[in-house]
Amino acid sequence: MKRGEVRSDIAWATPTKVVIHGLDLCEQIVGQLDFGQMAFLQIFARLPRDADELRMFNAMMVILVEHGITPSTLATRMTYCGAPEAVQASVAAGLLGLGSVFVGSLDNAARMLQEAIPDSMQPGDIGVLARRIVADHRARKEIIPGVGHPFHKPVDPRTEALFRVAKETGYYGPYAELMTAIGAEAERVTGRVLPVNVTAAMAAVASQMGVAWQVCRGLAVAARAVGLVGHVIEEMKRPMADELYLRIEHEASQHLLPRE
Amino acid sequence: MKRGEVRSDIAWATPTKVVIHGLDLCEQIVGQLDFGQMAFLQIFARLPRDADELRMFNAMMVILVEHGITPSTLATRMTYCGAPEAVQASVAAGLLGLGSVFVGSLDNAARMLQEAIPDSMQPGDIGVLARRIVADHRARKEIIPGVGHPFHKPVDPRTEALFRVAKETGYYGPYAELMTAIGAEAERVTGRVLPVNVTAAMAAVASQMGVAWQVCRGLAVAARAVGLVGHVIEEMKRPMADELYLRIEHEASQHLLPRE
Amino acid sequence: MKRGEVRSDIAWATPTKVVIHGLDLCEQIVGQLDFGQMAFLQIFARLPRDADELRMFNAMMVILVEHGITPSTLATRMTYCGAPEAVQASVAAGLLGLGSVFVGSLDNAARMLQEAIPDSMQPGDIGVLARRIVADHRARKEIIPGVGHPFHKPVDPRTEALFRVAKETGYYGPYAELMTAIGAEAERVTGRVLPVNVTAAMAAVASQMGVAWQVCRGLAVAARAVGLVGHVIEEMKRPMADELYLRIEHEASQHLLPRE
Amino acid sequence: MKRGEVRSDIAWATPTKVVIHGLDLCEQIVGQLDFGQMAFLQIFARLPRDADELRMFNAMMVILVEHGITPSTLATRMTYCGAPEAVQASVAAGLLGLGSVFVGSLDNAARMLQEAIPDSMQPGDIGVLARRIVADHRARKEIIPGVGHPFHKPVDPRTEALFRVAKETGYYGPYAELMTAIGAEAERVTGRVLPVNVTAAMAAVASQMGVAWQVCRGLAVAARAVGLVGHVIEEMKRPMADELYLRIEHEASQHLLPRE
Repeated sequence: MKRGEVRSDIAWATPTKVVIHGLDLCEQIVGQLDFGQMAFLQIFARLPRDADELRMFNAMMVILVEHGITPSTLATRMTYCGAPEAVQASVAAGLLGLGSVFVGSLDNAARMLQEAIPDSMQPGDIGVLARRIVADHRARKEIIPGVGHPFHKPVDPRTEALFRVAKETGYYGPYAELMTAIGAEAERVTGRVLPVNVTAAMAAVASQMGVAWQVCRGLAVAARAVGLVGHVIEEMKRPMADELYLRIEHEASQHLLPRE
Repeated sequence: MKRGEVRSDIAWATPTKVVIHGLDLCEQIVGQLDFGQMAFLQIFARLPRDADELRMFNAMMVILVEHGITPSTLATRMTYCGAPEAVQASVAAGLLGLGSVFVGSLDNAARMLQEAIPDSMQPGDIGVLARRIVADHRARKEIIPGVGHPFHKPVDPRTEALFRVAKETGYYGPYAELMTAIGAEAERVTGRVLPVNVTAAMAAVASQMGVAWQVCRGLAVAARAVGLVGHVIEEMKRPMADELYLRIEHEASQHLLPRE
Repeated sequence: MKRGEVRSDIAWATPTKVVIHGLDLCEQIVGQLDFGQMAFLQIFARLPRDADELRMFNAMMVILVEHGITPSTLATRMTYCGAPEAVQASVAAGLLGLGSVFVGSLDNAARMLQEAIPDSMQPGDIGVLARRIVADHRARKEIIPGVGHPFHKPVDPRTEALFRVAKETGYYGPYAELMTAIGAEAERVTGRVLPVNVTAAMAAVASQMGVAWQVCRGLAVAARAVGLVGHVIEEMKRPMADELYLRIEHEASQHLLPRE
Repeated sequence: MKRGEVRSDIAWATPTKVVIHGLDLCEQIVGQLDFGQMAFLQIFARLPRDADELRMFNAMMVILVEHGITPSTLATRMTYCGAPEAVQASVAAGLLGLGSVFVGSLDNAARMLQEAIPDSMQPGDIGVLARRIVADHRARKEIIPGVGHPFHKPVDPRTEALFRVAKETGYYGPYAELMTAIGAEAERVTGRVLPVNVTAAMAAVASQMGVAWQVCRGLAVAARAVGLVGHVIEEMKRPMADELYLRIEHEASQHLLPRE
């Protein structure tokens, strides 16, 4: 790329035609591709190679859509109650909390895996890698990303589900093996229950699909945007934000109120 | 709903199970549903009835994903260049501009259609409705939503594509007929070229699918979140934000600089 | 402005100098102006004319900074608990709910006042205007903006405080008189307790200061950004978001859980 | 704090009274405090001790308000052109890019200073600290935060201005000395021009005022919110976003267009 160049390869349009990643929107996309294929196209800049690749991608995306009432969905609902005319702002508010605490372990686990296995064709000795990674993290007193869950234990059922699809589609490879080995090694050396959690499973699968670790959070963000729209719709019909904030305001400030 | 009740019907979880809209995430969703079905489930709180309903929904979602370089994608790219560690914030920034100017005509067209035809089983006389709507808007000197496009004319090819799928799947009904009639009537009385644009086509299809007009913007927001992730990925690899802001800063402030 | 022109008059810089609205940042702003004067400069593109104008502006800004636990501060706190590394995102999330419900009455009241009195030098007959505005809103079954408060009644003490400063500084003029008259007329014709609330008081004062109604929401947004930082700081030291979301998740989904 | 406690010490209200950090909003804040004092109150949970402390705080806040056309102000303007009805969303969009690239060096410099000098009463040997910090960063091949500027060199005039106020008010202490020594040492060992930039100056001053490094970004966010409102106002009157995005769209996609 030349210095000073401003260039995008994603799309172009004439009055009679729109082309996205080389496909004619009106002829080759609308009515031909489903939402999963379109998301794949937008993220990989190509269509899925085969049904297995698409199935694996779909499994990864659907697992992220909905997690019930979370800080993120509450931010969406609180925003909706103040700005119901701006649904885009409600969804955006919910996305903003997808940071280091809830989604960061996805990036971090993917980075750990991709740095350990730069080339998935030459994975090296998985057991050796797992022991070294666990030892290194413990030496630096750092948390091992993707290992352990406060609620889903001793096993995270979503990991099992995602890895089952990975095995069926051929994406259970060195990254998933390494992640599994890291979890087992971490349990062995700490003596604690440390399931490979869903973000780690996703990190392994995304790495096997060739998604750079920097991009992994983007997948989560796209999937959660879909989920947050569901919470906006429910908040329209069955609001909770008003009731909640009044309760919380009362509870949080009552110690300051003057006694009668 | 009782006063003071805080209740969500979307999801619940135990340590070994997650259930979303009545479906077991690990058994019935991951590996079974694709991203389009999952988005449908989250928005309608049920699975699609048949392949036609799903195909229509997918067509509507994919058409919204990508529009090339727009104010929205530029906001995403500008945000990424300042906060590359927070991809969620870049996507959120791009969503925030999906307001009255670019997506508002979707809500407005859907509202116009749904208020004109409250019950799609009893649509009334489409020609009469179209004439009344156009006349009313002109009397109030209001823009008719969904009619006209600065670039895609005399026909918006995306409208043709979406309506073609609607005809194939059985969703070309009273709302699409009314929207088409409104466009024709508006062209007749103004003598101007006023194609039914893509937001109007979506409004008609969404109305026929039973999506309340207040929810339509949410569909656009979810689809565009997917698209914005694509722009984040391209900005990672081929950045333009830095070059652009330096150019714009120079151009915008040069009239203030002291002459040597 | 010429077609195609890209121009900003706000600031320019050379390596040794930064100039904002004609003032040298290093010589005439830092150490010379306080935060209130700087906010005034940024909003009016000039310095305050005198101490009264600055005092009135400061009064308007400080009244908006903090409102305790609200949906907006909860959105900030929920976002912080997921993305503590991105404080900018927490503040942004809290701002996003400043829409039609909580801040919209500020714009709406200012618009109502400015449309009724386009020229504050020629206000017309205040009583006649007030009666007409109340009657028009009632005829259209529309809410009169800025009148009534669920909690601060029969009088909103913040209105009294702001109007007291307005009287002391010479900004209690036709707009405040009209707003007061509208409140009284609304109480008279409805027989209900309808205090002029703080957003209406601000709308009146901002109008008298020459702030266009479209800009009023911006003042609120700037002031609340300051307030939201305070909530981020408290959430760092004394978190409530985690406790709250776990409670709410439990309460909201318990009706879905299988009975043992 | 007890487990499960939800408590905020910021504000409380009765129908006739609002109290913020112990001050009566209507009696002791409105008309009495200016916007700088109110921001101080909200951030430090107390009023400034004296005029010097307030002057130092004001100097720090005003220096951050406005930086002309930046990625952040462009994100605000792009958002405004799509959602002019939601000014809060435009300001929020501009804040979202205040991340690691533009504001991160503020946090990082403050952290570096506060970790080197945990107790400003016992600063240790500044020269020794500076040499160790520079050597450590070089050994780890890490950028030294707050040192160097692409445009404001060989000296950042804003640093001079802020440190001048710090000297006048008694806040030029160990942190500013250390930051200055780090800059000089970095220049000495690298042989490059590395001015102490404005974010480092702010980090030093904020540290001397007792602001925890985690909170520093919050100050920048609050100040920039004020600045972004100024860009919204200018974009209302003299829009540039539409012109810019059309130009950029054309430039970025022209290589994809079919040749006639």
